[in-house]
Amino acid sequence: MQDLILRNDTGHVARLTLNDPDRLNVLSFEMIDALADAFRGIEADEKIRAVILSANGKAFCVGHDLRQMQASRQDEDAGRAAFDRLFGRCGGMMQMIPALPQPVIAEVHGVATAAGCQLVAACDLAIATEDAKFGVNGVDIGLFCSTPMVALTRAIAPRAAFEMLVTGNFITAARAQELGLVTRVAAQASLSEVTMEMAQQIAAKLPAAVRMGKRTFHEQLRLGLADAYATASGTICENLMLPDTEEGISAFLEKRRPSWDDS
Amino acid sequence: MQDLILRNDTGHVARLTLNDPDRLNVLSFEMIDALADAFRGIEADEKIRAVILSANGKAFCVGHDLRQMQASRQDEDAGRAAFDRLFGRCGGMMQMIPALPQPVIAEVHGVATAAGCQLVAACDLAIATEDAKFGVNGVDIGLFCSTPMVALTRAIAPRAAFEMLVTGNFITAARAQELGLVTRVAAQASLSEVTMEMAQQIAAKLPAAVRMGKRTFHEQLRLGLADAYATASGTICENLMLPDTEEGISAFLEKRRPSWDDS
Amino acid sequence: MQDLILRNDTGHVARLTLNDPDRLNVLSFEMIDALADAFRGIEADEKIRAVILSANGKAFCVGHDLRQMQASRQDEDAGRAAFDRLFGRCGGMMQMIPALPQPVIAEVHGVATAAGCQLVAACDLAIATEDAKFGVNGVDIGLFCSTPMVALTRAIAPRAAFEMLVTGNFITAARAQELGLVTRVAAQASLSEVTMEMAQQIAAKLPAAVRMGKRTFHEQLRLGLADAYATASGTICENLMLPDTEEGISAFLEKRRPSWDDS
Repeated sequence: MQDLILRNDTGHVARLTLNDPDRLNVLSFEMIDALADAFRGIEADEKIRAVILSANGKAFCVGHDLRQMQASRQDEDAGRAAFDRLFGRCGGMMQMIPALPQPVIAEVHGVATAAGCQLVAACDLAIATEDAKFGVNGVDIGLFCSTPMVALTRAIAPRAAFEMLVTGNFITAARAQELGLVTRVAAQASLSEVTMEMAQQIAAKLPAAVRMGKRTFHEQLRLGLADAYATASGTICENLMLPDTEEGISAFLEKRRPSWDDS
Repeated sequence: MQDLILRNDTGHVARLTLNDPDRLNVLSFEMIDALADAFRGIEADEKIRAVILSANGKAFCVGHDLRQMQASRQDEDAGRAAFDRLFGRCGGMMQMIPALPQPVIAEVHGVATAAGCQLVAACDLAIATEDAKFGVNGVDIGLFCSTPMVALTRAIAPRAAFEMLVTGNFITAARAQELGLVTRVAAQASLSEVTMEMAQQIAAKLPAAVRMGKRTFHEQLRLGLADAYATASGTICENLMLPDTEEGISAFLEKRRPSWDDS
Repeated sequence: MQDLILRNDTGHVARLTLNDPDRLNVLSFEMIDALADAFRGIEADEKIRAVILSANGKAFCVGHDLRQMQASRQDEDAGRAAFDRLFGRCGGMMQMIPALPQPVIAEVHGVATAAGCQLVAACDLAIATEDAKFGVNGVDIGLFCSTPMVALTRAIAPRAAFEMLVTGNFITAARAQELGLVTRVAAQASLSEVTMEMAQQIAAKLPAAVRMGKRTFHEQLRLGLADAYATASGTICENLMLPDTEEGISAFLEKRRPSWDDS
């Protein structure tokens, strides 16, 4: 049996690859668990400073495993408990991404739809090929993309998200960039290179600073202004007390490269 | 006396038309009540699955009825109670739109200003002609558009809204689209066709799924991530238990059109 | 010793200028205090209706004073108390801007980075030259821009902000405009003219209406819809009771210029 998630490390960068190409990387129970396991492994791995989430095959991810879901309708409760378990576990996995200490970059080609689009929106950053397409089109088969909506409405303007949700229409990579879902668009041939370049750029920063920063980014986002400043001031003062940060500032003032303990 | 709001149904789509063209569709007490009545009628009408809000005459809507407001200054309290009533009733009407089970599309031509711009921002979606103009320019006559601001700052980037509010400057349809206030721009000649096409596209979806989705869209928007996922997971599981959704997924897997009870 | 902040009034517009060009207008303790003093002076000055915040020298502002910060590492506590004081005082100064009754326009040329970018994001509006650059690149020297992040993530799409924060990459004025950080871009030669024109446009409005509006803008922004409407309705009714607003509306209806007490 093949591994559903492949992991390849290059220096401080971990590349995770969705590896169920024949089924367009559907988020089956097994795929969700494999992703969650992979994230747990990365969370505990001090060596890793940036993560790329890519996919094998012609699509990034087409969402939940509809065959597996229909099969659970044979249960005594017509699937209700299985559905609760599925969406509980999937939402938990999606929420692991902002909680990870390392930034996660989605590397998107082909189609990212329904929970596949949710996965892109749940990552910290996303880079896509010119011909990538994004949709939350469950509504076309009678299943409104309510859970993908949570991640999507936190990444793009709410009315643009609402139009996608009720019409089922796909948007192009260019429109996804305009809306902020994707931060960069690359040619298919150079996608993995562009993504790796950004991952290595992030990995070259002081890891402790990036970790504090990512944690505080999410903490402060939904606070009022005064509380957000109190939280962020606490973080930046903690950051300043790191010996590596003292060295980083000294190096900058002396126009030399910093000599960091953990580089 | 003419009807201030016209309603024309085409299949599952209701078109409401602001019909006070000589006064540029001002939001008088009577117009606000007529709109609220129309929304109540639609809320109770199971047949309707999408709503278009359009306008007769050369402007979409130029905001409150200033003559009516000035007249109430003759009251003993110099108008204070009348103003409280007016803005309470208008805000209540505006809040009926996201609360309606059906998506509402604003179809905008000409000028939408002050509470007219608020009405566009309060709708779920908006399509405008190329030469439509949007403003919240009450400040030009000494009346800051505080209530229109509530809807506008929830639809576009806050600094762009603030510039419109303090300068009184109008923005074009193209800029409104860039900012996300409008999701599509159409030529004047094809406006009603483009809007009807989107409305019918929405009306072709499973109504129960769209209703759950719209309700959850607004519920989850201002929640923290974990609460938003809990809410949305509840909705999607409820959605999955609908017989029509079971049929919709089966039809998709079997590459046939779904046979829905209520189509 | 030169003044760190220059103030020049033109009619109802106050221009504040960061005046430490040799040090690229770093936000030293002294500069932060000078800015806070200037804001307090403006808050109390009924004559002022709009504020421009500009800078002398080749950069707008390059953030905190790193030499001063490194010097405080000589303290018994290795600088901890000094850092707490610095960020407490800086965050307090930044929060004075939305709390000021008058709108504040940042006039940006050259580089605005780290707390310099925060200062732009903390202003109500911003106009920049075509070649201005914006960054929050503290991460390059091991100091994540946690406090600038608070203002930046409230002005632009969060993922675009996150990319700037973790990569240290700068964005152009054109991209800053697309993202909404800057509302207008001007040629270097006409920058101060364009800014003054917008400031005078704002200053020509009824000051009491602009004050109520700015206060309510910030109050309602983070409230739920019903609470936001309640707050804004209170403001607009209060606004309507002003004699100058009664006159403004009458003048508009009579197609004449308003005769306001305080023009």
